[in-house]
Amino acid sequence: MNTKTILLASRPVGVPTAAQFQFETRAVPASAAGQVLLKTLYVSVDPYMRGRMSAAKSYVAPFAVGEPISGGVVAEVVESHGAQLPVGSVVVGNLPWQEYSVADASAVQRVPADQAPASYFLGLLGMPGLTAYFGLLDICQPKAGETVVVSGAAGAVGSIVGQLAKIQGCRVVGTAGSDEKVAYLKELGFDEAINYKTTSDLAGALAAAAPNGVDCYFDNVGGAITDAVYDLLNKHARIALCGQISTYNATEAPVGPRPEGKLLKTSSKLQGFIVSDYHARWPEGVKKLTEWYAAGQLKGEETVTEGFDQIPAAFLGLFQGENTGKAVVKVA
Amino acid sequence: MNTKTILLASRPVGVPTAAQFQFETRAVPASAAGQVLLKTLYVSVDPYMRGRMSAAKSYVAPFAVGEPISGGVVAEVVESHGAQLPVGSVVVGNLPWQEYSVADASAVQRVPADQAPASYFLGLLGMPGLTAYFGLLDICQPKAGETVVVSGAAGAVGSIVGQLAKIQGCRVVGTAGSDEKVAYLKELGFDEAINYKTTSDLAGALAAAAPNGVDCYFDNVGGAITDAVYDLLNKHARIALCGQISTYNATEAPVGPRPEGKLLKTSSKLQGFIVSDYHARWPEGVKKLTEWYAAGQLKGEETVTEGFDQIPAAFLGLFQGENTGKAVVKVA
Repeated sequence: MNTKTILLASRPVGVPTAAQFQFETRAVPASAAGQVLLKTLYVSVDPYMRGRMSAAKSYVAPFAVGEPISGGVVAEVVESHGAQLPVGSVVVGNLPWQEYSVADASAVQRVPADQAPASYFLGLLGMPGLTAYFGLLDICQPKAGETVVVSGAAGAVGSIVGQLAKIQGCRVVGTAGSDEKVAYLKELGFDEAINYKTTSDLAGALAAAAPNGVDCYFDNVGGAITDAVYDLLNKHARIALCGQISTYNATEAPVGPRPEGKLLKTSSKLQGFIVSDYHARWPEGVKKLTEWYAAGQLKGEETVTEGFDQIPAAFLGLFQGENTGKAVVKVA
Repeated sequence: MNTKTILLASRPVGVPTAAQFQFETRAVPASAAGQVLLKTLYVSVDPYMRGRMSAAKSYVAPFAVGEPISGGVVAEVVESHGAQLPVGSVVVGNLPWQEYSVADASAVQRVPADQAPASYFLGLLGMPGLTAYFGLLDICQPKAGETVVVSGAAGAVGSIVGQLAKIQGCRVVGTAGSDEKVAYLKELGFDEAINYKTTSDLAGALAAAAPNGVDCYFDNVGGAITDAVYDLLNKHARIALCGQISTYNATEAPVGPRPEGKLLKTSSKLQGFIVSDYHARWPEGVKKLTEWYAAGQLKGEETVTEGFDQIPAAFLGLFQGENTGKAVVKVA
């Protein structure tokens, strides 16, 4: 049995292009005891994967050139030598970009596919949901009535952060890169949403949207938006530093206004994090997210691209702001 | 009765000079019920006061032009209408730069002048000691064997931070601006001390001094030293942001490498703070600092300038790195 696979052809310099991806057909090995043969249903494409395409040390090891790219995948068990995962069960795991793959049953996690669309386990009920949950609720700890700003608010994580902040009773301000996204944020219940690409005075727009200052900032973007938010921090503000997509394709070390003086004057906290920091508490997060979703309090927006061959394009589209909500590729 | 007083003559642009200070003789009002007449013994000069000389909003209100400058003062009660403060008792408080002043007895705090030199209540057993205590122990929470870096290590706060970190069993690295200060840090028990002014490769020197990376950073300085430390952060590093003396006299908003990416990759925390954030816990801090001092585990270094008229010079000297340990002026 063969499968298509996508390898990292070369490391990008600056903005990645289609040239970084190489399609190949490989044989799928026979699954052994304790293993399962998996048919890929959905592939997740995420901004953090840009970091893994570079050789630089980061929180996850770089992808190897000439080897399959891997990431979040939802798959169906089509052959099982692992008792806990019967054929037909749906699992999520860190798996290669392939139509089929073999994995240890213990390396993937079964998901309750009757409770939500399978792709949601890559988004609202998966890593992005948990990232939003812990970043907002553990690091920012927003209180009712406080103002929460979210950058990249229409993205996979940001759209959940904003909804969670509304559940907490906060005033929520989001930034996004198109009028369609701004309209979508309003639908989700954001109090204010700003198109940072078309707003001539970003600092003024943020100040107007947060007349009582900013208590919590969930940063997915960095750069000029973040600089402007720093100027609005209230005393004891909390910043969850989740992503810096504005800098991921930079070819030189990014330079900007130093934030330390602003954090010092306001006794504010800036906390970098990654969802795996909270590994021990994931079950709590999944439980709460699932409850809010079942109660209709959380919506899981997605941008679904169809077809295995479109995975690189969907990934590259992240850096053009093409997705609203979670970007996934439907493979089967 | 008259007293000399020092007024803020004008707001500085960039580095402050003697022109910002105006000496005047004023009448001391009679002390009323509940008040005390105080004779100034020691005046504290501190880098944070530079911020109060500017009009910009910060964590403490600006000094008013034409009004006395005020700050930490140790004084002796020479006339008392407040039962809890008998004549002869020694107090510390936020008081004007004057030889004599009248204050509400409730606005100053009696100190146990038999337990330590009176000036120590402006340093080791006062605000700088508490700043070191809470910034290091509450924000950084260093564990035995971890590496702690302190910038401005020979200053009032930094010299205490380093000693506290040694009490916690850490490897301690300090930066300072002269060979004399470096030698002093070694005397205090610092494992490594770096003269940032004469080291041609600051990043290399820091990396060599912290071969296992940096777990905690207590930042009094900001700028290039801080940029270099950010590159050495271990996973889950904690940074207590206490001061940014390298930028206090800047006339333009300081610019530098963006730190967010480095904090993100290491899940590190950057927490701005001021000692008053911990007001409710000051008694705990004073108790612990006093115990360590009494046990000979903490030393209180000072640079003492003599004479009321020398207060401005002692203050200006802070920005030339003239002090080792706490800078105080002995007035009487």
